[in-house]
Amino acid sequence: MNLSWWEAACRPLDLEAQREALARQDQLTKPRGSLGRLESLATTLAGMQGTARPAVDTLWIAVFAGDHGVVEEGVSAYPQAVTGQMLRNFVEGGAAVSVLARQLDAALEVIDLGTAVPLVPLPNVRHLNLGPGTQNFVHDQAMTYAQCLIALEAGRDSVRRAREAGAQLYIGGEMGIGNSTAASALACALLDLPARALVGPGTGLDASGVRHKAAVVDCALVLHGEHLADPLQCLLRLGGFEIAALAGAYLACAQQGLPVLVDGFICSAAALVATCLNPGCRDWLLFSHRGAEPGHALILDALQAEPLLELGLRLGEGSGAALAVPLLQMACRLHNEMATFAEAAVADRPA
Amino acid sequence: MNLSWWEAACRPLDLEAQREALARQDQLTKPRGSLGRLESLATTLAGMQGTARPAVDTLWIAVFAGDHGVVEEGVSAYPQAVTGQMLRNFVEGGAAVSVLARQLDAALEVIDLGTAVPLVPLPNVRHLNLGPGTQNFVHDQAMTYAQCLIALEAGRDSVRRAREAGAQLYIGGEMGIGNSTAASALACALLDLPARALVGPGTGLDASGVRHKAAVVDCALVLHGEHLADPLQCLLRLGGFEIAALAGAYLACAQQGLPVLVDGFICSAAALVATCLNPGCRDWLLFSHRGAEPGHALILDALQAEPLLELGLRLGEGSGAALAVPLLQMACRLHNEMATFAEAAVADRPA
Repeated sequence: MNLSWWEAACRPLDLEAQREALARQDQLTKPRGSLGRLESLATTLAGMQGTARPAVDTLWIAVFAGDHGVVEEGVSAYPQAVTGQMLRNFVEGGAAVSVLARQLDAALEVIDLGTAVPLVPLPNVRHLNLGPGTQNFVHDQAMTYAQCLIALEAGRDSVRRAREAGAQLYIGGEMGIGNSTAASALACALLDLPARALVGPGTGLDASGVRHKAAVVDCALVLHGEHLADPLQCLLRLGGFEIAALAGAYLACAQQGLPVLVDGFICSAAALVATCLNPGCRDWLLFSHRGAEPGHALILDALQAEPLLELGLRLGEGSGAALAVPLLQMACRLHNEMATFAEAAVADRPA
Repeated sequence: MNLSWWEAACRPLDLEAQREALARQDQLTKPRGSLGRLESLATTLAGMQGTARPAVDTLWIAVFAGDHGVVEEGVSAYPQAVTGQMLRNFVEGGAAVSVLARQLDAALEVIDLGTAVPLVPLPNVRHLNLGPGTQNFVHDQAMTYAQCLIALEAGRDSVRRAREAGAQLYIGGEMGIGNSTAASALACALLDLPARALVGPGTGLDASGVRHKAAVVDCALVLHGEHLADPLQCLLRLGGFEIAALAGAYLACAQQGLPVLVDGFICSAAALVATCLNPGCRDWLLFSHRGAEPGHALILDALQAEPLLELGLRLGEGSGAALAVPLLQMACRLHNEMATFAEAAVADRPA
């Protein structure tokens, strides 16, 4: 039987490098464990990067955009034209993720998988033209098998470019009016939860908007019910182009050994898809933050993920992951640059 | 009646600058509120700095060190010589805060208020020689009134140097074997709590060590009980040189209008002292993290502080505050550099 590319084995972590890093942590001039989560961050990165001295100085941020047919059900507070408008804002430097990428000196690539409003090609945007957004999944499957394959490959292609650029950490971001509805539907299907357990306000629905959105998701779960035992079917029936691309990127990172820092609710739903498609992927995912969308905590719990930040973020674009990058960098610097007890001639153990 | 210097009025926040910053936040290309805590960080800093475009690029980190007489009761896992040994490590660049200061391009000054083991003067350390540590507060008051005044002024002097260097943010750190015992005793006195509610393992006591430490603190609370209604008496009877210096620094920052980023348990106890001495100080304090020491959450609650990070840190030195600096910097960059809806021609409100 032929495996699809995303089913091929993920790279194992380098346990020897991780052990070496743990031994080093034990020698640094601080009480054991006193740097908390930063210590395990450094040793985990050591296992991923295959070196006892990890670093995350070269960063790659890829923002995937796509529109969603389900928006015609009135599930979003914003008009669909915003997806395309924001593409221009990303490359012109005015969006949140653009500011953060600049601040971090990160490469930022923007990939348009398919928007509802036709766009003049934008400089520095990769337009893949999969279609004018997905189909409305209340009536039909969101995308064809062919579209889903292209989107998954778009993620893999992004990871190839990241590796060619020498990236030490991969961040995926997303933009797509309506994509919190798609992400909620996907997570409900994969976690076998009813819509009311997961659906939230997204970028700004009121309580009655959230109830309507939940009803729309429940409708879709009923329509596609018999197909939802298969994660690939979940993705193509309920997902979005950008969500499929993110899942493809995460899977490629795990196969090729590039650490991933996962952003918010939508990206975590894509991480859940990726992990369902290939469980080995999970080892390569670091989680940046727990966002304001109530369903985010459920997805993180299902992935046994303990994110670094909790700041009430609900923007997407990869912004939450970008905000957590300095913690990873400082964890590595502390690990690599602190003196050992012997080097500093400091008494190293209890009196 | 003569006021002590720390009782003079704190600078009021600039509400006009804060309003201007709020109005700007509303125009940026993101759903309103979607950057969560970062939005209020930016507008709060605007009110502190008196400009709608705040910045925290120039940083000052002052680490205050002092020894504690109460260590003779066996309340610390580490020998007292470590305080002095770590002073050298700070200036030689091998300590956690040294690594972080380098990474942040922050000025780092190290102030030795008085250590138990006599030290050869170290280059780049200010030795103030208040005494060989405090007295054991189980038997006596920790410091004299004169020592307390000098320590408070040492904090104020540090703030003067920070301002002369153009600092936009002040971070205090501390080092002192035994200082979690002093900080716990102080917080118990100021919050009227028994030792068992607040005392924790510090840098590494086991359960029986924690019980003994709590008994020691309760002893001190009984001995000094009648004087503990006055926060200055609490400070000089139960505090430490470095804790008094931190309180003095926070008070001077609030009077002179320099934003403070408070570190962990010990610094939060100093912030509590400062706020009891002069409640207007509270407006100038930002809180970086909730640490592993169980009493930290109680102090933060009493100060109505919601810190930015929770990473299980328990190192001190100012390290937790340094780790939170990039969040402040990115909050300012986002605030200052993101495009407005009008600039980016993005539809700004619900469809």
